[in-house]
Parts: sequence; structure tokens; C-alpha cells
Amino acid sequence: MPSQIKLAVIPGDGIGPEVVTEALKVLTATSVDVSTTEFPFGASYYLKTGTILEDSDIDELAQHDAILLGAVGGDPRDPRLTGGIIERGLLLKLRFALDHHVNLRPTTIFSGVTSPLAEPGAVDFVVVREGTEGPYVGNGGRIRTGTAHEIATEVSINTAFGVERVVRFAFAHAMGRERKKVTLVHKTNVLTHAGGLWQSTVDRVATEFPEVAVDYLHVDAATIFMVTQPSTFDVIVTDNLFGDILTDLAAAISGGIGLAASGNLNPSGEFPSMFEPVHGSAPDIAGKQLADPTAAILSIALLLSQFGETDAAARVNAAVEADLSTRGATARSTAEIGSAIADAVAQN
Amino acid sequence: MPSQIKLAVIPGDGIGPEVVTEALKVLTATSVDVSTTEFPFGASYYLKTGTILEDSDIDELAQHDAILLGAVGGDPRDPRLTGGIIERGLLLKLRFALDHHVNLRPTTIFSGVTSPLAEPGAVDFVVVREGTEGPYVGNGGRIRTGTAHEIATEVSINTAFGVERVVRFAFAHAMGRERKKVTLVHKTNVLTHAGGLWQSTVDRVATEFPEVAVDYLHVDAATIFMVTQPSTFDVIVTDNLFGDILTDLAAAISGGIGLAASGNLNPSGEFPSMFEPVHGSAPDIAGKQLADPTAAILSIALLLSQFGETDAAARVNAAVEADLSTRGATARSTAEIGSAIADAVAQN
Ligand SMILES: CC(C)[C@H](C(=O)O)[C@@H](O)C(=O)O
Ligand SMILES: CC(C)[C@H](C(=O)O)[C@@H](O)C(=O)O
Repeated sequence: MPSQIKLAVIPGDGIGPEVVTEALKVLTATSVDVSTTEFPFGASYYLKTGTILEDSDIDELAQHDAILLGAVGGDPRDPRLTGGIIERGLLLKLRFALDHHVNLRPTTIFSGVTSPLAEPGAVDFVVVREGTEGPYVGNGGRIRTGTAHEIATEVSINTAFGVERVVRFAFAHAMGRERKKVTLVHKTNVLTHAGGLWQSTVDRVATEFPEVAVDYLHVDAATIFMVTQPSTFDVIVTDNLFGDILTDLAAAISGGIGLAASGNLNPSGEFPSMFEPVHGSAPDIAGKQLADPTAAILSIALLLSQFGETDAAARVNAAVEADLSTRGATARSTAEIGSAIADAVAQN
Repeated sequence: MPSQIKLAVIPGDGIGPEVVTEALKVLTATSVDVSTTEFPFGASYYLKTGTILEDSDIDELAQHDAILLGAVGGDPRDPRLTGGIIERGLLLKLRFALDHHVNLRPTTIFSGVTSPLAEPGAVDFVVVREGTEGPYVGNGGRIRTGTAHEIATEVSINTAFGVERVVRFAFAHAMGRERKKVTLVHKTNVLTHAGGLWQSTVDRVATEFPEVAVDYLHVDAATIFMVTQPSTFDVIVTDNLFGDILTDLAAAISGGIGLAASGNLNPSGEFPSMFEPVHGSAPDIAGKQLADPTAAILSIALLLSQFGETDAAARVNAAVEADLSTRGATARSTAEIGSAIADAVAQN
């Protein structure tokens, strides 16, 4: 563990800078030794400079111990930003270049938070989403584009190396949790090639973790259980695309995307991990102090855990939980929420 | 329209035969002129005969005007049935061979039905799922299987021909509905090749339907709205895999998979369409009269609509709605539910 954490900060676009400001406020309140360097990347930077992310930028980011990212992406109707050019050129590029093969996304229904579910039960699970392969590799193409004979393909690429390391992470992670249960989510009855690799990898790794209970759900069925019995999940391990879908659903049932934190982890430490709220840049509410900084703040807790600062992480989580339980009908600004949580962290 | 509907019936496995019996009871009660021929296909048939579905079986099925399918699939732990062999060899094989390119899945929260959502609102939408291409084509493979160097791929194939016909169906279908709104669901910011084809097809077809409002959601965001604002959806058009996932989620929020009907349509009439409940064969509760036949009965209503029997379809829907609103704490058997609905249909 570094004595001082060198943190690269990418506030990004829209509400990104606002929530990052609050996240850093809370990080400062923990008194953990951190130095920050800010990077301007995002849609506005691209529109100004024509650059999304150069190789030299990645090299510079890689010099840091971790990255905090707010949110990136501009106005979706802007023709200069179509086709996910910022998402792919910045966010996914970093996940791939920095080998963030574990995308860790915890879901808890905090006390005081209203779930859209009538009877959510006690929900506390984590999705371990693969982050560097699957349908996200960009493989495929279009021929005869724009004609009646167009064909477009997407190739999901799954490797034993890539699947095994994330499955192994999920089992090891489950060992540190009370229920010690891993659920593989895939679609093995249709996607038999990739599904076969995922299932056989889980079967093999499971033999090394005899204490961990193992379960399997097709992705379609998993969405049902997430709505009807979310408390039955402990650790879900799944591919990049299914993980993307399930974690938005998980956020929805647990009080919204404003509370969903994530860590794009490089567990070996070869490259810096990147922490980010699951939400996007929400250009429609940007600059108005309307955004909830909680997801960014909870991402700070994930960052702290990653650096062994378990006490500081617990203080952040506790302060968030306490704050959530007092939220009433009166809306507070982004800064008010951040300051309240930071104050509580500083006092504990 | 045929004067007598020649219906091929595949009761299938598990609860399939039980729910099909009730669906046929209700069909008879409508007095629409139908003749039925039963086919034994399914997991048990396969385990007995070694045959899933021969080309000659498909030819024979194709002689009918429509197909009613209960549910197929055996014990998922049976090693002779792994890898979705029945699902792919029977269900998907029929969808592909009979060119069921529109998989129509309506979602309503019927009065009297308890949604797991605290405030579901008035929900009435339909998912138009592409049924003959996308990630379901089976393309891809595994090399170095079982070794540390294994690679497994899945290739999603999307054609202008295939996408345009289902998109066109969705717009035409929306024209017959009150809100006239089509939402494309995809993941165009990551799956840019297929997403580009889907988006440009929707853009082009939309110009022919100026009265239809057009919207777009990424699949991850769509799961959020399905939980938080399901009443905002009207017609969703999406690919085979996203449609599979979204329709299970849609079933979950609207009272469960026991109520979800579907039609695998061949709109041109070149081949028979196939109607089936979205649920599976549920071997654990099979033969106990515990299954809810409602999804199969609602699939009969879809079948009747398809043959222009709109009055009979409306009577079935009304009888189901009335029955649902009287369901209390006392569980009724599969046959009791079927008979109650059939009686109501006969009396109206
Ligand atoms: C913005 C997008 C590329 C990204 C993803 O699909 O991974 C987002 O949805 C997420 O979940 O972090
Ligand atoms: C059984 C399975 C192959 C099927 C599918 O994936 O289409 C089912 O989930 C459905 O939705 O009809």
C-alpha cells in the first residue's frame, strides 16, 4: 500500500464535476493521505480539442495509484457525439487499457431508502462483472451499410484466462462474506459456446472453494428474481453485458442510480483501479446542484477498501447510511449532501 | 382466414400438458371452429426416442394454421439435457424454421393482480422481440476447449432484411394503439455495429409513420424505467436477446411469469405462427395441478386475434381479467382456474 495515495481525478461532463467535488470533500474528511491530480477528459474536452484520450494520457494516468471518475458524455442529441464515441473512447478505453477485469458493483438497500419494490426484504449483494471482454470488445462490423443487404455483426469474445480470473475473484470475494454464495448468471441454453466456457470455469473453480455455495441462473430469470426475491443474492458473477444490464436493474430496485457505486478493479495492482458512480453525466440537470453525490461518495468507500483503509471506508459508509436515513421531503443541494456526509465522517 | 383453424398442439414437458389442457378448454368455449392435432415433442419424448425434431416433423407442423406450445424442457440437472439441447433443438428450431420473426409479448397489469412494485401505475405495453437472428443464431464456437487457452465466441448476426421487417411490424402495431409510441431498446453506445443498423432502420422506417412518436433507450436504462416508470412504455422493439431479458422483467413487474403470454408470429402467413406461455416447464411442480394456466390461456387470445377472431379474443381476455380480480388467498387447481375462465367465456 502506498503511504500516500496518488489519485487521478477525471470530473468529466455534466453532473460529473459536481459529484466529484463532494466525493473529494468526503475523502478529505477521512484524513487518509491522498494527493490529487485533475484531468480534463470528457465530451466537452473532446469538442474543444478534438482529442478524447491519447496513449500518452493513459500512460500519465497509469502513473497514479487510483482514478476517480465522475461521469463522461455530452448531449446525446449532439451529432458529433453519436455512436458512444466518448463512452468507448474514454471510459471503455480506460477499462481495457488498465485491465479493469473486475467491475465490482455492490447493492444494498440502505435503511431509510425507499425501494420501488413493495417488499424488497434485506438486500445486500454484489455483482462481479467481467470488464475486459465479452460483447464489449468491439469486434464485428457492418457491410453494405445503408443498403437493403446490410449485415451487422457483434462478436462476443471470451477467454479461459479472462473468465477464470473474474470467476476466481468472485469466489474469493464470497469467502469474505457471510453467506458465501456465488450465482453465475449467463444464458447457457442459447449462448452455448460462451456459456459452456463460463459454466465449466465456475464448476472447476468451485472445487477449490468447497465452503462456497454455487448457483446458476439464466439472465432472463435473474431479472425476475432481482424483482421478486433480491435478498436471495449474495455474489453474482457474470459477463460484461449481462453485468451492465443487471447492475442498472439492481440500482433501480435499491433506490436508484443515484446510490450505485462501482469499482473497475485491477486486482493485481499492475494498473490503477478506477472508481466511478454507475450513473451517467445527466446533462439535463448539470450545473444546478440537483445531482445526488451519494454514488460518487460510496465509490470513495470502495476506493478506500481497495487500499486497505477499511476503517475509513466503514466511516464513509456509515455516514452515508446515517444521512440517507434522515433524508426527508426537502431537497438539499449536491453540496449540502456532500458537506453533511463529510462532516459526519470527520466527526467519527 | 381459414374457415376452420387447424391447430397443432405440442403440450411438451412438465406443466406444459396441464396448462395446454386448460387453454384448449377455453378455446373450445369460444366456439371458434378449430381442429387439433397433438404432437409428442419435448424432453421426455427425446429421452424415450432419441429424437428431438426431424425435418419431416417440421414439414408436418407446417401443414397447420397455427401451433400451441405448452412448455418444453426436462430436469435441468439431467446430464442428457445440458446445453439447452431441447430449447435449441425444438423451441428455437421451430422459431427459426417457421420464420417467427416477430415475438410478440404484451404486458398488462390486470386489475386485481398484485405487482411486486409499490406503485406500478397503469401498465400496458408490448415488446416486439426479433425472433430469428441476433445472438440467437448459434454462430461462434470454442477452440482449445477445457484448456487454459480456450477461446469461446458468440456472433450476433443482424441483417437489414431481418431488422427492417420487425421494426416495420412494431410501427404498424403502434398505429393500432392509443399512444402510438415506439421505443427502440439496444446498446448503441457499445454494440455500435448492430446498434447502428437498428438505429438507422428505426430512423428510416419512422419517416413512413409520422404519427408515431419514437424513443430510444439503452437496454440497461430500459430495465430501470421498467421498474420505476413502466407505464411510460407503449411498443418496445428490440433484438432477440434484449427482448428475452426485458420480457422476463416485464413479466416480473406485472404479476409474474404465470400471466405472460407470447406469440411467435410469422406475419406473412407463409408458415404457422406459434403461441406459447413465456414460462418454462417447471418440472418441480409438474403433475400436481399447481401451475397457473393463465399465460397459456392468454396465448389463446393472441392466437384468436391473429386469425381475426377479435371478438372471441376479447371474451377470453375479459374472462381472464374477471377471474384475476376474484382470486383470493385460497389456491385453486390448474383445472379449476381453466374451467372458471372457460365457463365465463362460454357465457359471454
Ligand atoms: C456508458 C457505458 C459504456 C457503460 C457500460 O456499458 O459499461 C455504463 O452503462 C456502465 O454500466 O458503466
Ligand atoms: C427457453 C429459451 C430458449 C427461451 C428464449 O431464450 O427465447 C425462453 O427464455 C423464452 O423467452 O421464450
